[in-house]
Amino acid sequence: MDSFVPPDRPIAVIDVNKCKANIRKMAQRAAERNLRYTPHFKTHQSMEIGSWYRDEGVDSIQVSSPGMANYFIDQGWKSIAIAFPFSPSILPQIDDLASRVNLTVFINSTETAKIAGKSLQNPVTVFTELDCGFNRSGIPAEDSAQIEKLLNEINKHSKLRFYGFYVHDGRTYQCRGADEVVNTINPVFEKLSAVKKKYPEAIIRLGDTPSCSLLNDFGVVSEISPGNNVFYDLMQVQIGSCSYDNLAMAVVCPVAEVHSQSNRAILYGGAVHFSKESIRMNNLACYGQVVRFENQNFGEPVTEAILTGLAQEHGILHLPEILSAKLKPGDYLALYPVHSCLTANLFSHYLTTGGERIEKRILS
Amino acid sequence: MDSFVPPDRPIAVIDVNKCKANIRKMAQRAAERNLRYTPHFKTHQSMEIGSWYRDEGVDSIQVSSPGMANYFIDQGWKSIAIAFPFSPSILPQIDDLASRVNLTVFINSTETAKIAGKSLQNPVTVFTELDCGFNRSGIPAEDSAQIEKLLNEINKHSKLRFYGFYVHDGRTYQCRGADEVVNTINPVFEKLSAVKKKYPEAIIRLGDTPSCSLLNDFGVVSEISPGNNVFYDLMQVQIGSCSYDNLAMAVVCPVAEVHSQSNRAILYGGAVHFSKESIRMNNLACYGQVVRFENQNFGEPVTEAILTGLAQEHGILHLPEILSAKLKPGDYLALYPVHSCLTANLFSHYLTTGGERIEKRILS
Repeated sequence: MDSFVPPDRPIAVIDVNKCKANIRKMAQRAAERNLRYTPHFKTHQSMEIGSWYRDEGVDSIQVSSPGMANYFIDQGWKSIAIAFPFSPSILPQIDDLASRVNLTVFINSTETAKIAGKSLQNPVTVFTELDCGFNRSGIPAEDSAQIEKLLNEINKHSKLRFYGFYVHDGRTYQCRGADEVVNTINPVFEKLSAVKKKYPEAIIRLGDTPSCSLLNDFGVVSEISPGNNVFYDLMQVQIGSCSYDNLAMAVVCPVAEVHSQSNRAILYGGAVHFSKESIRMNNLACYGQVVRFENQNFGEPVTEAILTGLAQEHGILHLPEILSAKLKPGDYLALYPVHSCLTANLFSHYLTTGGERIEKRILS
Repeated sequence: MDSFVPPDRPIAVIDVNKCKANIRKMAQRAAERNLRYTPHFKTHQSMEIGSWYRDEGVDSIQVSSPGMANYFIDQGWKSIAIAFPFSPSILPQIDDLASRVNLTVFINSTETAKIAGKSLQNPVTVFTELDCGFNRSGIPAEDSAQIEKLLNEINKHSKLRFYGFYVHDGRTYQCRGADEVVNTINPVFEKLSAVKKKYPEAIIRLGDTPSCSLLNDFGVVSEISPGNNVFYDLMQVQIGSCSYDNLAMAVVCPVAEVHSQSNRAILYGGAVHFSKESIRMNNLACYGQVVRFENQNFGEPVTEAILTGLAQEHGILHLPEILSAKLKPGDYLALYPVHSCLTANLFSHYLTTGGERIEKRILS
């Protein structure tokens, strides 16, 4: 199939050239700044898309669960970090994965270091997550006593090889524009500098897509692992990490009903296709935005055509009069999602804008 | 396996007795009021759970997509309504389904009636959706000219057999308590009475779970098709459709990190497990709430233990001091979801509280 046929259900459609350009751009950003690019694969979850990173020289990746690591091992990836705190619950899975590849785990407490060190039969590389103010996982970066205690514990165990510190500071997702991202990240970098001074051998890896997309100076950071940039999404446009032109995935939805008097349409495309992530747009809750999709290309976004509500399979679209007047049931529309990671997770495969199928991992 | 083993990943766990009791209770409510119970199966999406409805005498069901209809046909269901507006996009799927079972479709416009009537090779039963103020799909209930025009069109076609009117008024999801639900639905019933007066042969079916759970008087409604009541969820507790005791599904999550100083824990359980649906609870955004899970039973909810944030695989749990003091990585916690339909959709199977696996439909 080499052209797009009207879909009979919502479909995640990707622009392969844009994906590849997004990957290349990030690889180049990294190369120009002497950073190692160890991308997160949780967004696309696809072996075929994974191969596009290989073409850019990537040899080490990051995933968010043991199951996802397993999937990419089957594609021959040999260096994989599981960007989620190690706990005894996943020990058998970790040990199995570590017997097959160079596995990196996140160990964030002396208790879990002790358990991993005593129980693992296979060696793992260890990152410790630092919390620089985001208040999610990891040790507070300023708590040098706790860091020292944990590193001492890690170093006691022959199966644990300490590699460095990992930081994902999700506060950048609240920023608007590069200046705000820089201002949010500067105090993070100050904390990291202090840690790096104490542990000069430690590698520091940074995860969030806004910082990786926008910063020029990465301070003591030497590895970056963004994931979302393969597709980007409306949220990243709003942050300023990318422009509409970079958006590489849209959900193509059949039009089920048109209420032209109220400039509203019902799409076959709901919460089980888009996810319930929303942003504010034009003073409305926005779950997606229409983009022109012609000649196998995503074109201009339609500013006023916004998905304002989602039921399980229904999408409620508000649209400008000019569009509602000519739309009819049986047509289809492409919509950019708000958060491409969660949207992609809801599909069993992608179609390219040319109509070719690309497999991906499904829920496990 | 007859007892619950600590999970190595987030798992959707159901209490079979509570599910069956929820189904039975709704079947009894219907029977006592001379209503036909035609349940929606979009919440559980499981053949095995479907069989529990058969035990209560159910012989006609509702689903939200052609794919879901197909899944339940494989279990031998012979009367299925697709509770989503028919459009030409899904015509081939509808025709195929209609060749195999007694299929009911929703036809909401003369254009789509014309297309369905001319193109379908196999007969279908037809509901027309009425919009009584919710502003989602369907014809405004007060627009008698449009209704009359549509019914005339439907009656022209031998493959279309008009059956009645369907109403899902989602405004009841904003209600708190039975009185508010009654006050919201009364004007809906007035509109439906007027329609019924004009078309006395038409069946009227009502869909929303709050109304089906709480109303005593169903006016001109003669069929009900709630779906969520098989599990219920925190949102329905907040509305008043059920009590905590009725909640039949929880997500059981491994504990990854405990920050006892800040009464916070990181769970292995994120947006790809819970969905991003939230409610307000204790003045916080709430994506889930801990419930005691002991001896194969869901017990009391832990009022102050609330999932306040979700990353893709991380859940950020705020919890009371007494719980955070004794919690450790490797433990697991059960959490009631906010919206069980969307949560269940994210899992490939269920475990019972006794640890037995129950298959379900996966994304297609």
